[in-house]
Amino acid sequence: MKRFSVAAAACAAVSGAGAQSSVTLFGVVDAAVTYTTGSGPVSSSKWQLTNSANTFSRLGFRGTEDLGGGVAASFWLESGLQNDTGTSFGTNINNQRNGNVGDGGLIYGRRSTVSLSGPFGEVRLGRDYTPTFWNTALFDPFGTGGGIGANQIYFTSLSGLSAPTGTRASNSVGYFLPPTLGGFYGQLMVALGENPSNAVLPGPVPLSIEDDGDYTGMRVGYLNGPFNVALSTGRTKYAVGDLRVTNLGASYTFTAFMGLRVMGEYYTDSLGEVDGKGALLGFNLPVGTGEIKASYAWYRREPGFDLPRPTVGKFALGYVYNLSKRSAVYATAAWLTNSDGAAQALGGVLTSPDHGSRGTEFGLRHAF
Amino acid sequence: MKRFSVAAAACAAVSGAGAQSSVTLFGVVDAAVTYTTGSGPVSSSKWQLTNSANTFSRLGFRGTEDLGGGVAASFWLESGLQNDTGTSFGTNINNQRNGNVGDGGLIYGRRSTVSLSGPFGEVRLGRDYTPTFWNTALFDPFGTGGGIGANQIYFTSLSGLSAPTGTRASNSVGYFLPPTLGGFYGQLMVALGENPSNAVLPGPVPLSIEDDGDYTGMRVGYLNGPFNVALSTGRTKYAVGDLRVTNLGASYTFTAFMGLRVMGEYYTDSLGEVDGKGALLGFNLPVGTGEIKASYAWYRREPGFDLPRPTVGKFALGYVYNLSKRSAVYATAAWLTNSDGAAQALGGVLTSPDHGSRGTEFGLRHAF
Amino acid sequence: MKRFSVAAAACAAVSGAGAQSSVTLFGVVDAAVTYTTGSGPVSSSKWQLTNSANTFSRLGFRGTEDLGGGVAASFWLESGLQNDTGTSFGTNINNQRNGNVGDGGLIYGRRSTVSLSGPFGEVRLGRDYTPTFWNTALFDPFGTGGGIGANQIYFTSLSGLSAPTGTRASNSVGYFLPPTLGGFYGQLMVALGENPSNAVLPGPVPLSIEDDGDYTGMRVGYLNGPFNVALSTGRTKYAVGDLRVTNLGASYTFTAFMGLRVMGEYYTDSLGEVDGKGALLGFNLPVGTGEIKASYAWYRREPGFDLPRPTVGKFALGYVYNLSKRSAVYATAAWLTNSDGAAQALGGVLTSPDHGSRGTEFGLRHAF
Repeated sequence: MKRFSVAAAACAAVSGAGAQSSVTLFGVVDAAVTYTTGSGPVSSSKWQLTNSANTFSRLGFRGTEDLGGGVAASFWLESGLQNDTGTSFGTNINNQRNGNVGDGGLIYGRRSTVSLSGPFGEVRLGRDYTPTFWNTALFDPFGTGGGIGANQIYFTSLSGLSAPTGTRASNSVGYFLPPTLGGFYGQLMVALGENPSNAVLPGPVPLSIEDDGDYTGMRVGYLNGPFNVALSTGRTKYAVGDLRVTNLGASYTFTAFMGLRVMGEYYTDSLGEVDGKGALLGFNLPVGTGEIKASYAWYRREPGFDLPRPTVGKFALGYVYNLSKRSAVYATAAWLTNSDGAAQALGGVLTSPDHGSRGTEFGLRHAF
Repeated sequence: MKRFSVAAAACAAVSGAGAQSSVTLFGVVDAAVTYTTGSGPVSSSKWQLTNSANTFSRLGFRGTEDLGGGVAASFWLESGLQNDTGTSFGTNINNQRNGNVGDGGLIYGRRSTVSLSGPFGEVRLGRDYTPTFWNTALFDPFGTGGGIGANQIYFTSLSGLSAPTGTRASNSVGYFLPPTLGGFYGQLMVALGENPSNAVLPGPVPLSIEDDGDYTGMRVGYLNGPFNVALSTGRTKYAVGDLRVTNLGASYTFTAFMGLRVMGEYYTDSLGEVDGKGALLGFNLPVGTGEIKASYAWYRREPGFDLPRPTVGKFALGYVYNLSKRSAVYATAAWLTNSDGAAQALGGVLTSPDHGSRGTEFGLRHAF
Repeated sequence: MKRFSVAAAACAAVSGAGAQSSVTLFGVVDAAVTYTTGSGPVSSSKWQLTNSANTFSRLGFRGTEDLGGGVAASFWLESGLQNDTGTSFGTNINNQRNGNVGDGGLIYGRRSTVSLSGPFGEVRLGRDYTPTFWNTALFDPFGTGGGIGANQIYFTSLSGLSAPTGTRASNSVGYFLPPTLGGFYGQLMVALGENPSNAVLPGPVPLSIEDDGDYTGMRVGYLNGPFNVALSTGRTKYAVGDLRVTNLGASYTFTAFMGLRVMGEYYTDSLGEVDGKGALLGFNLPVGTGEIKASYAWYRREPGFDLPRPTVGKFALGYVYNLSKRSAVYATAAWLTNSDGAAQALGGVLTSPDHGSRGTEFGLRHAF
């Protein structure tokens, strides 16, 4: 994604002559014509214009002020964008289920941070991505885009284990290791639910929810040439049961073989007795000015005891033709299978339990 | 409206040296002191600070990337602006009455598109103006501004035939002819309601609403020197009755007579047995650095059978004094008459059936 | 706050070669880790990531077009920003209690104006700060920031005398004296509630609310070297009782004594029989690249008759370390006391009547 300096001339206006300070306006607008269908006795199909099937649509403002000595102050305000209708994506203000906000207005729900960085690393305050999100995004060839290729959204929907902290957390204090540790990288995050100390869940025996929405997570990784591996784990406190997420992702790029990048991820989450387990294998293969990509992902909900364990499998195949570094046209096809009572379907349609769903999409993405 | 390059220097950062790529921030802020009053036994009057009486207030971001060979990728994100209060205008996400979204936040409801254009014309995806809107906007000297001069809003209110696709449609795929056809121009649009295939309207006999909100429309025109004419027609599907709109507009500019531009429009809409018919005559006359403009418009609702046919007439007279190309002060006066039971009134006041309404406004408009 | 020209190069594009026209993108992102606690039998405490504790977080666009002869047209669109969660602050569209709008979307609720200025002063239309707000903001060393140092929010909460026009008004027409009057300055504002002439409050005897939300206010001041004094007064009409605010503020900067600036304010408000009275003393003291500041403020609600008069006192002490002109880290501590039945507490916690509340915050502020 190209980022344009909002004010190249502004640098001169900043006190501290050598400062590499700038404010940048950036974004992505991505739209696709999508057809999805379920199968079985109770099912439906749908034609849609969707957004974000290749890259999440967004509009943002960010900037950095060089404070000297390698230290910098930065801000980042980034809003999601549903450009098929002109609306935006919302946010969650307290990392709890009652904290969803946003029915369309521009909200910096993707990221809203102020930072101080330097040789010591980076301290970042605000709404930001959780450490446990990154492996799911970076080790999937379809990323976490909103299209039928992405996997995360179908699996969290199956498990019922999704939390408002699945991708981002509000009220967070984060710390990032500096990028000078010979390939090792890492992120720590503490985020607050901001409940008052006397908050309780009403009931015969009132339950303290003082800590609900408090998130603690970390991620450590190692990147060396073609090889990248990272482990992350996190916990969000809820009085009704903490949500725990742990995942491990790795990728290897075969520069000798046309730049083929293969990747995999294993992930688990749990909420009390209920577990979820999943795995993914995928690749990107550059071909001329384009790219072929594919993934197979699998996820199972394990409710404990002798209950059924609904399972989803999903195969996605995509081709992206790059018109330039910023613009591309693309096509994706995906097939999803359900078993043991699962009834997940692509693109908001219905499918019957244990029946499949499939979809195709053709789109145009432009970044600025 | 002037448009400013957000980052002139950014061009250099774009790969492809000769590219005429840019990102532009643009907008209009227009405010007016407005007095409107109804008449008759049940009526009211009101003083307001209104927005958009000369030009619709807005804030937008747009950009184009030159891909070579006359081909370009573009985006356009434009939000309406109610600058008397700091809020924005909303959008409609599914082209149906239950799809209105937006209680104030910045929403790119005016236009939210990504495009690919070239010698073949332009393909545009997202939320955009419907073909059937343009004649109503371009062949009215007061445009479709929010002030008392504009005509469209009073007439769609009378007929009850307004649809969420009256001005724009979400989920649209549009095609525009290239501007190289010797004065001929044209636009085709298909927009999706995005209902699932099994969606029904509940009732004794459930009615399929699978296609509700699907819009199909086209516009063809011819522009040659002082002469401009265009015909458009469109249909929005609703299970309770499709909405059809057809209109024809034309204008002629007498360069020999001070640049006087005269214009007219004839339009019809229908929903089952109910028809609406209207016509407009108007002119713009440049006078020094200013402009005088006037319109007379007439609209009648025809419910079919022997029911009364409420009718509205409206005369508007305006003067715009241009402080510069971007800034202007202006004044408008308007008189509206009702007959056969109509009770339309200007600027949100009440008037009694068959009684008139009048208003005046004084404003300041600044574009950037 | 530094403001960056969005498009320095844009000037050249403006007709009128010598014009000093520009469009500017500006903002503040300010976040703090805050701990607040109440005391007494019914009380709570809370850890939060807060926004705006040093300077109100915001994002805005503004611009000016030079029309020649010292005359200029300008616009200003500024949105509040809750960067701990990515949301914004809302607005109030009619200066009445039922007019609050905004659950998160970007809303230009801080200011949304179009202006014409020149040797005659400035005429400004839209949503803007009321004259009666400024003394409370400018003669408090903690301003009206959202942190625990600021005083206004705790006092309006005590009195119940807050109005939607306490800080800003929508639908306003304002006039400012030109800055050429030898140190004298002044502002007049009329803002409209925009109720129709027949609006009534239902009841046994319907009460006309035609004028509800209409605001009239003025401010006059004198600034000469180190000395600044200003008096303001305003009235907002409500059928249930007009709200009147009057305040007087002054400051003096001792350049010989390290630049110490001492300041004070006296303010009164009233609604029918209920009065509120308050006073504030404070200082800023530059120390190296930082600044120490402190304030003591006192406020009493006087309900009339022999009713109790709840009273709040508040002491705040702060230190700001400037990393640059735009970026700073800061710490604040505050102690609040309640008497005669008052139960105000810092940062959204609970305290028992006549018990104290205290808080601390550590933050990072970056302006652009």
